[in-house]
Amino acid sequence: MSKQISMAVIRRLPKYYRYLRDLLDRDIYRISSKELSEIIGFTASQIRQDLNNFGGFGQQGYGYNVEELYNEIGKILGIDKGYNTVIVGAGNLGQAIANYSGFQKSGFEIKALFEANPRLIGLKIRDLEIFDIEDIEDYIKENDIEIAVICTPKESAQDIADRLSKSGISGIWNFAPVDLNLPENLVVENVHLTESLYTLSYLLNEKNSQK
Amino acid sequence: MSKQISMAVIRRLPKYYRYLRDLLDRDIYRISSKELSEIIGFTASQIRQDLNNFGGFGQQGYGYNVEELYNEIGKILGIDKGYNTVIVGAGNLGQAIANYSGFQKSGFEIKALFEANPRLIGLKIRDLEIFDIEDIEDYIKENDIEIAVICTPKESAQDIADRLSKSGISGIWNFAPVDLNLPENLVVENVHLTESLYTLSYLLNEKNSQK
Repeated sequence: MSKQISMAVIRRLPKYYRYLRDLLDRDIYRISSKELSEIIGFTASQIRQDLNNFGGFGQQGYGYNVEELYNEIGKILGIDKGYNTVIVGAGNLGQAIANYSGFQKSGFEIKALFEANPRLIGLKIRDLEIFDIEDIEDYIKENDIEIAVICTPKESAQDIADRLSKSGISGIWNFAPVDLNLPENLVVENVHLTESLYTLSYLLNEKNSQK
Repeated sequence: MSKQISMAVIRRLPKYYRYLRDLLDRDIYRISSKELSEIIGFTASQIRQDLNNFGGFGQQGYGYNVEELYNEIGKILGIDKGYNTVIVGAGNLGQAIANYSGFQKSGFEIKALFEANPRLIGLKIRDLEIFDIEDIEDYIKENDIEIAVICTPKESAQDIADRLSKSGISGIWNFAPVDLNLPENLVVENVHLTESLYTLSYLLNEKNSQK
């Protein structure tokens, strides 16, 4: 795939993937773009256009083969790759993510947690050890770690990210409420929970003011 | 404010709010749209345009008064309202959110958790009780609950959302990996963690294939 896919299309792919999984779970193996449109909420033409980006899986008069489409999108998303992952910050959020089974299912294998707080170092979450943050560079190099999940307070996130970057990590899933400043070749995906909460607050405020 | 603000602008407001807070924390009280542009990453013209939507806080030759702008955006976001909130689902994620201090700071006051698992009912997270999900309708009505955070498995999320909606809740912060089907007057903000993870996976896969 040499063609550049727009970020807007990419952001929709996980949604297709999720809905197709649901269809398979309900033993539905064939679907038209019109039916898919009704359940997923995008227009049928949008769906055809999106999926055309990846070679077009639909067949005139037959629709989409759900399983094939699911597997193809999974491949495009790289779900089957199996990335070695560490979690940095073993507080509430870090622990919740360590316990989150969807993580493993999405092809991210958590190997360990890292933490600065001496009271947490040495403890275990499931069968995962919490190591001293001071040892993270060596661990990344020795264990071929590709992904780090940053669950630290915002004050330490940039410093951690710099250290991770120098240790040769490929991607960061960032939960700290900061925009990390990192080399272009490092992939960063942010989950800004507070911003999501502010948006909810705005929408509520707006709704209440219309009463 | 009778003017309709686009969702794209609204999505940027929390980011302004976060950066302005950082400026105040660093004792910076005055900033030009150009300087703001350099730290926040939007163009200066975008910033002026965005903030114009809300009456325009800047002054020619002076720039923005950071504190004033911060307070104004806080008001627009409704941060100071203090919404009574419950968490539905007291698993790892529900517990992490119950422990998350940013929640309280953003004006959402968590009153209790609700759970279907009898082994968790009756326990406490900090000083918050975990109640039986069967009692949620009464609790919402009696305690003037406006917001629910859904942290249940996807299978029960729609059913819970229907019950919450009928009990008169105003908004839902949804972490379950489903798109909830709800009346128009109910505000829903989704955090789809798995989709974010799939996007990270895609970007990594794309990057690796370019090597």
